[in-house]
Amino acid sequence: MGISMSERQSNRRVRLQDGFWNKFTELVRGTVIPYQWEALNDRIPDAEPSYAIRNFRIAAGMEEGEFGGMVFQDSDVAKWIEAVGYSLASQPDPELEGTADELIEQIAKAQHANGYLNTYYSIKEPGNEWTNLHEAHELYCAGHMMEAAIAYYEATGKRKLLDVVCKFADYIDTVFGREQGKLRGYDGHQEIELALVKLYHATGEERYLKLAQFFIDERGQSPNFLIEECKQRGGYSHWAKKELPIPTIEQIAYNQAHLPVREQDVALGHSVRAVYMYAAMADLASLTDDRELLEACRRLWDNTTKRQMYITGGIGSTHHGEAFTFDHDLPNDTVYAETCASIGLIFFARRMLLLEAKSEYADVLERALYNNVLGSMSQDGKHYFYVNPLEVWPKASLNNPDRRHVKSVRQKWFGCSCCPPNVARLLTSLNDYIYTTSALDNKVYTHLFIGSEAQFELAAGQVALKQQSRLPWEGYVRFELTAVPDAAFTLALRIPSWCYGQAVMKINGMISEYEVENGYATVNRQWVQGDIVEWEPVLEAQLISSHPAIRANAGKAAIERGPLVYCLEEADNGSLLPNLSIDRQAELQSYFDTELLGGAVVIEVKGRADERASWQENTAYRPLAQQQVSEPVKLKAVPYYLWGNRQPGEMTVWIRV
Amino acid sequence: MGISMSERQSNRRVRLQDGFWNKFTELVRGTVIPYQWEALNDRIPDAEPSYAIRNFRIAAGMEEGEFGGMVFQDSDVAKWIEAVGYSLASQPDPELEGTADELIEQIAKAQHANGYLNTYYSIKEPGNEWTNLHEAHELYCAGHMMEAAIAYYEATGKRKLLDVVCKFADYIDTVFGREQGKLRGYDGHQEIELALVKLYHATGEERYLKLAQFFIDERGQSPNFLIEECKQRGGYSHWAKKELPIPTIEQIAYNQAHLPVREQDVALGHSVRAVYMYAAMADLASLTDDRELLEACRRLWDNTTKRQMYITGGIGSTHHGEAFTFDHDLPNDTVYAETCASIGLIFFARRMLLLEAKSEYADVLERALYNNVLGSMSQDGKHYFYVNPLEVWPKASLNNPDRRHVKSVRQKWFGCSCCPPNVARLLTSLNDYIYTTSALDNKVYTHLFIGSEAQFELAAGQVALKQQSRLPWEGYVRFELTAVPDAAFTLALRIPSWCYGQAVMKINGMISEYEVENGYATVNRQWVQGDIVEWEPVLEAQLISSHPAIRANAGKAAIERGPLVYCLEEADNGSLLPNLSIDRQAELQSYFDTELLGGAVVIEVKGRADERASWQENTAYRPLAQQQVSEPVKLKAVPYYLWGNRQPGEMTVWIRV
Repeated sequence: MGISMSERQSNRRVRLQDGFWNKFTELVRGTVIPYQWEALNDRIPDAEPSYAIRNFRIAAGMEEGEFGGMVFQDSDVAKWIEAVGYSLASQPDPELEGTADELIEQIAKAQHANGYLNTYYSIKEPGNEWTNLHEAHELYCAGHMMEAAIAYYEATGKRKLLDVVCKFADYIDTVFGREQGKLRGYDGHQEIELALVKLYHATGEERYLKLAQFFIDERGQSPNFLIEECKQRGGYSHWAKKELPIPTIEQIAYNQAHLPVREQDVALGHSVRAVYMYAAMADLASLTDDRELLEACRRLWDNTTKRQMYITGGIGSTHHGEAFTFDHDLPNDTVYAETCASIGLIFFARRMLLLEAKSEYADVLERALYNNVLGSMSQDGKHYFYVNPLEVWPKASLNNPDRRHVKSVRQKWFGCSCCPPNVARLLTSLNDYIYTTSALDNKVYTHLFIGSEAQFELAAGQVALKQQSRLPWEGYVRFELTAVPDAAFTLALRIPSWCYGQAVMKINGMISEYEVENGYATVNRQWVQGDIVEWEPVLEAQLISSHPAIRANAGKAAIERGPLVYCLEEADNGSLLPNLSIDRQAELQSYFDTELLGGAVVIEVKGRADERASWQENTAYRPLAQQQVSEPVKLKAVPYYLWGNRQPGEMTVWIRV
Repeated sequence: MGISMSERQSNRRVRLQDGFWNKFTELVRGTVIPYQWEALNDRIPDAEPSYAIRNFRIAAGMEEGEFGGMVFQDSDVAKWIEAVGYSLASQPDPELEGTADELIEQIAKAQHANGYLNTYYSIKEPGNEWTNLHEAHELYCAGHMMEAAIAYYEATGKRKLLDVVCKFADYIDTVFGREQGKLRGYDGHQEIELALVKLYHATGEERYLKLAQFFIDERGQSPNFLIEECKQRGGYSHWAKKELPIPTIEQIAYNQAHLPVREQDVALGHSVRAVYMYAAMADLASLTDDRELLEACRRLWDNTTKRQMYITGGIGSTHHGEAFTFDHDLPNDTVYAETCASIGLIFFARRMLLLEAKSEYADVLERALYNNVLGSMSQDGKHYFYVNPLEVWPKASLNNPDRRHVKSVRQKWFGCSCCPPNVARLLTSLNDYIYTTSALDNKVYTHLFIGSEAQFELAAGQVALKQQSRLPWEGYVRFELTAVPDAAFTLALRIPSWCYGQAVMKINGMISEYEVENGYATVNRQWVQGDIVEWEPVLEAQLISSHPAIRANAGKAAIERGPLVYCLEEADNGSLLPNLSIDRQAELQSYFDTELLGGAVVIEVKGRADERASWQENTAYRPLAQQQVSEPVKLKAVPYYLWGNRQPGEMTVWIRV
């Protein structure tokens, strides 16, 4: 259990200070959190109302009215408080804290005497609690409230919400379990499992860990709880508002309950549910030293990230069930790649790093963060993508129902608004993702190259360092050791996948050898206060191809530069992007464009445009021989995370070679 | 009205006798019609029951039971009778005729005293007739029964069913109209319009023509009949079995009732409904000399065939609503391209040919016939595609819900089995599509090169000819004039689009000049009995490219040879078809492969396969620079209509260049 405790200690002492990321964390603090507060209070003009705060006021008896929004609407409030907690931890804001305190009072009032807390069931279906775990997200909402309470408690020291969720967790522990009279079940949407682990860390209460383990262990056992529960309801479905056929075991793969988790080999079903579960599995594998669970985590990691992940770190290949499909099926145009799923993948990756410090976990974490997740939010912080496509034709998004879920313009707020608050809580807690330590081994790992000041407690003593980073634009990072212990310790710097092993380390200006361990450049020595470590992974634009079985990308390449995936937009390249191709041998020219949305490195490369002028409008097909020679053009690629911030238009990540 | 009368006369005197097509018409006669009879009688093991015959027996009071199948199940019976009629016309079969007579007796018994005929309403919702034109297909089924009755009457001279449908039509005429107390409406699924025109031709009864005109003219007028009708039902939906929101005018585009038909410019909505309507519009434009309607037909033709048609003659780009989407949106993998829609397109094309003999109509007709339609039926006549894709990955059809409608194996019989009987009635009436005449101008047009013996009545007198054709394998057609009038007349032979203007005509062995009129090679002269006209359009394999705005085909080519589109199948080329590319300059080598499914010309061409061996299974992305040089391979393409007749596997029409 040492790993996670040391992790927690390290986390609390990292302060982000970064040329690239400050802008986004400031955006979250200054705009997103206030904007989402307005949204939660139904005060955004022309956006679907959230009803989320109002539901709590009604459940608290402070207001009359009907429940509004989705059955899991409470979770939006929880995610917002969690983000507020992280934000307050790094930057106090008495007014914001006051607002949150007041909200927490209302939440506490909405809690039942026995500890139960859920506005949907309180307002709309009192008495029906725990009768539809399959669909109704009660434990999911409980989990989010736990995460919120912990973040808020750790930031402010205020226990009010923590007490609420502990009371709720204690109550849940009386409802679920293997003992006679208890429900031997679990939620249709995983989340409480990882939350209970956090609650265990925050409180030291072993019961919460055991309960998380119970939920994970029970999942997928026979007889299948979710199916049996459906039968008990006569098949009645909350969503359909009528009786539906009882789901088959194959259909229950949507909830990853088709097999005991230790027997699962491939990522299946709803992608957010999946990665939230995998994250909890990794937590438990670490905390309980469960070898079988660890192996399952590794298998599911490999399948998810090596066979079912888009180059942007997106997962989920279909909007039907917001789900995984199967190995190498990664269509770029009918893609789902939900923002929340990539955030869940980041949760999973971080826990795998805690289990075993292998750089591939951090590589995926970085990929999802800089591309799928960062690209989901507009530069004004007020508009979001739920679906993050790799190819967009705006007309098709409007007029072809198969692509209607793919938006070419970020939306204000969603009726099901899971993604925006998820982005907020991730970005406000980004400091948690940069380092881990192995306290007993006296190792400090740097996974992400994000400017920050950090302090760690190792067995050898206290370490403090200051990281400065020029990422993602340049491959240059500088560490200053501002406090060192009297004994030796190890600095382990990730060798990012995108430098392909080419990275130079300098210590106090002198090129230094390093050991490579699991993808980390490690140096163990007696450090001296003021030591400067420079880290220079080669960061160059590259053309990337994808595995031949990924049929959607056959004959195509993507452009990557460091952690960033690039794309072509209509704004720079005109329409009909599929008719552009890239010269395989051409030089990728990178330059910093100060004009582009606050400044970014753009890439220009020689390519060709299929000849169009000889085509008549009303000719659909003609001999290829009539095609004139293609025209040389200069292609301009911009970072994927910036797409869709200018006029709406076509976009593509994969380009014909 | 001369055109259509002459058309009918010509039709009755064409007998098909063709090396290529006989096999299929024999298949329909010997296998499909008997097989479908079994299907209609619910006697196909492991196939969904049809209930169609049983419904008539129940409605006739001959059997007890519940209605089964779709609300439009009657139309399957009608289409079967229609096919039987065409089949009997060309080849008497007393046993089959006896079966049909018996069935017709039952149908007659199911007719109400007032003329009404529909088993769904008779059995399931008596009293609710004409309350859900939007969804319930009453007039659609009526139309199909009219077509059946006419075909059967013309083949056998038996009036029983014709009298039934005339009585029904007379009754419909009392229900619908602009007069007070009549319904000023039309069917949600067009079909009766073209059927009433046929009934007018068969009976000479002008009222039927006027009624067709009424339905066409009323469609899309304000206030919108279908929307108002939905309101009257309180939004109750037959399909959803509950109240739904009242459709908007945009949604009513599904039924092509969003605008008066003369104002429609682009093909929208359910593709079968659309082309059935366009066919009726073309009929009426011709019969009533309606210039405005003609212009609408031309616009809709252009949009449908030049911007929304697949190279196979398939239409309908999405399975959502089995519908058109918008110009140039022709995805190959999520395609719909329903068999019935291409058949409807053939109906439309034939009527446009009657309006104005321009070869482009016949080019499309031929394209749809030899590819989308012919490919929909298996070589055993017992399995059918409803959706005719241009790219298939069987695993995706199974595991990605976005592609689940795309089957990689033809199905036995469908719950909604509109397609198989539609194929049967088209193939049994193929003789109707080969020629038209312009009797007053003394012109005989040959649109399709299909072996046949034909007689025509021109103003100049009687013409008889015998066509022999080596299509689709060779560009050689031979006409023998077996009877000629004393006056000159014009032979007009289509110059098929696929010969790109290169076609040689020989008369009695001597190369002969010809005039080109609207894509037809015409020769006017005093012909002599026994004259031999040889027609040699150049038939060579070609690489075809598609308009740059058809994004799905960017950088790709298809192979065509004469009227046939070709495809690559896994059976010949291994899996991972998207990794194959074709050498632009390579020679397309055609040879007749006697082993392939009864024999067909296959095409071989040099190409390249992306290198795969250097890829590790668990690497999804890597630098393009690591890609080894692609390997030379020989690609083997087979006619599209034959795909999916060997082991299931991948298929693609469009190949990277």
